Amino acid sequence: MSDAAREQAIREAQAVAEEAANAMYEQDRASRSLGMKLVEIRPGYACLKMKVREDMVNGHNLCHGGLIFTLADSAFAFACNSYNIVTVASGGSIDFLLPGSLGDELTAIAQEQSRSRRTGVYDVAVTNQSGARVALFRGRSHQFEGRAVSQKNR
Amino acid sequence: MSDAAREQAIREAQAVAEEAANAMYEQDRASRSLGMKLVEIRPGYACLKMKVREDMVNGHNLCHGGLIFTLADSAFAFACNSYNIVTVASGGSIDFLLPGSLGDELTAIAQEQSRSRRTGVYDVAVTNQSGARVALFRGRSHQFEGRAVSQKNR
Amino acid sequence: MSDAAREQAIREAQAVAEEAANAMYEQDRASRSLGMKLVEIRPGYACLKMKVREDMVNGHNLCHGGLIFTLADSAFAFACNSYNIVTVASGGSIDFLLPGSLGDELTAIAQEQSRSRRTGVYDVAVTNQSGARVALFRGRSHQFEGRAVSQKNR
Amino acid sequence: MSDAAREQAIREAQAVAEEAANAMYEQDRASRSLGMKLVEIRPGYACLKMKVREDMVNGHNLCHGGLIFTLADSAFAFACNSYNIVTVASGGSIDFLLPGSLGDELTAIAQEQSRSRRTGVYDVAVTNQSGARVALFRGRSHQFEGRAVSQKNR
Repeated sequence: MSDAAREQAIREAQAVAEEAANAMYEQDRASRSLGMKLVEIRPGYACLKMKVREDMVNGHNLCHGGLIFTLADSAFAFACNSYNIVTVASGGSIDFLLPGSLGDELTAIAQEQSRSRRTGVYDVAVTNQSGARVALFRGRSHQFEGRAVSQKNR
Repeated sequence: MSDAAREQAIREAQAVAEEAANAMYEQDRASRSLGMKLVEIRPGYACLKMKVREDMVNGHNLCHGGLIFTLADSAFAFACNSYNIVTVASGGSIDFLLPGSLGDELTAIAQEQSRSRRTGVYDVAVTNQSGARVALFRGRSHQFEGRAVSQKNR
Repeated sequence: MSDAAREQAIREAQAVAEEAANAMYEQDRASRSLGMKLVEIRPGYACLKMKVREDMVNGHNLCHGGLIFTLADSAFAFACNSYNIVTVASGGSIDFLLPGSLGDELTAIAQEQSRSRRTGVYDVAVTNQSGARVALFRGRSHQFEGRAVSQKNR
Repeated sequence: MSDAAREQAIREAQAVAEEAANAMYEQDRASRSLGMKLVEIRPGYACLKMKVREDMVNGHNLCHGGLIFTLADSAFAFACNSYNIVTVASGGSIDFLLPGSLGDELTAIAQEQSRSRRTGVYDVAVTNQSGARVALFRGRSHQFEGRAVSQKNR
């Protein structure tokens, strides 16, 4: 592949990732209800932010671990759907390292570790506004046939 | 231990579990905001329900997997705090078996599998209103010194 | 289905499980080299035993955790191949509860938790000769088309 | 800290890691029986190799997944004991990406992701001689008080 063709392929992959992410964010009432913002999307990569609100904490004003998982799971979903092939989470695991506190702004960065025709593995690190690691998530995806976003106009 | 003493011990353990669960539920804004109901609590056991609302779904009206995890994680938290000893989740994993759909009523049943002085393992099965299994969760807990609820009146 | 037909179906499923397990055990040099014995097989269920030998321990005469995982993983493999459909492990997780010691006889019991057309979840509990739980394992299987054992004689 | 002091601290940490690893390898009959070689050790990092032998395969000459886990678990153990503080695995999970075949030389690289006073998270990637990823492992460690290797001569 020539340099020009490679650059063109990269630009197209990026355009697909952005189109898929925007369509997904639009439909994803759950992530939007939790105030998640999509900060960056690239093929196999996503960065999301979420602020820990009053309705997300349990006793002692600490963020419910499930909602930290939910943030990581959303970042994972955006990353593994960045190729515009319908992909779902088949499972995931999380290790909680530090609590998230009321008012914290959490950032989740998802990065693809492995991707075959049918399955993928994605790691997500969740950090707080000080850059300290709050949680480590690993998700497994399953890929179906078919496009998530119609591409007839491309 | 006599039968009477054993029965008394069981009644007391149950009273502790209920007291701890009620105090926890009161403080747990996150679980309450998601509409979770505490259905049953016993030492090492909890049953919670959650209805899949409009603000919990993503595309195709399917429940966000993170919120299914959150329901399971709450059931786990109630079960592992049923001894009134401060206990936190150190991590967990989930396998998604079936999607949850808008309007589904999900039930999470948490059962203790193992508990030592410092750590515990709890399994949670999440089912829908048809009794079909939606997800299997396994959580790991870490126990601290100290009581969650003051017991001076007991 | 009549009672007789049901009993016949159960007998056939059991015969398939035994035939698949025997063929698998024959080929499985790894499990045999580790001294594993197949104790019981049923559809979706397997029981294996392994004695902790001198070449399985690390410092302090404790069994290498990886070999406890290997025992559990074998039990899982026998259970998920009991339908004579080619099935492989796609992953698994383990929680270590107690160490295994030199000379201990470990028992792994695998039980199916979920099984769809393509994937399955199996739980394995590993206990020692006193019945104490040494480890809890959860495995995920992936199923292919095709038979593991030819059935032309059946 | 001056540059000289920092370099001295790094040299000492490296010497501790090497001393702990050598003592551990000496005692670890399980890893040695499986033919594992310790290739590199640094604080929070370990690289081990293992060749897939005849007694490690099951049907179709594929390496038993449990032994791939065992290799990863050993690399994890060397990495998390590199500070010469007694540390044990409390659990781990693995995703199998590609099979290992008879004769393959597998390399496991363990890297610390997180480490607090009591617990740690380590990721291990297992690759084959072509550099392809065979498995991804994540281990959780638990740290005790006390030294693994006496340091009276240091």
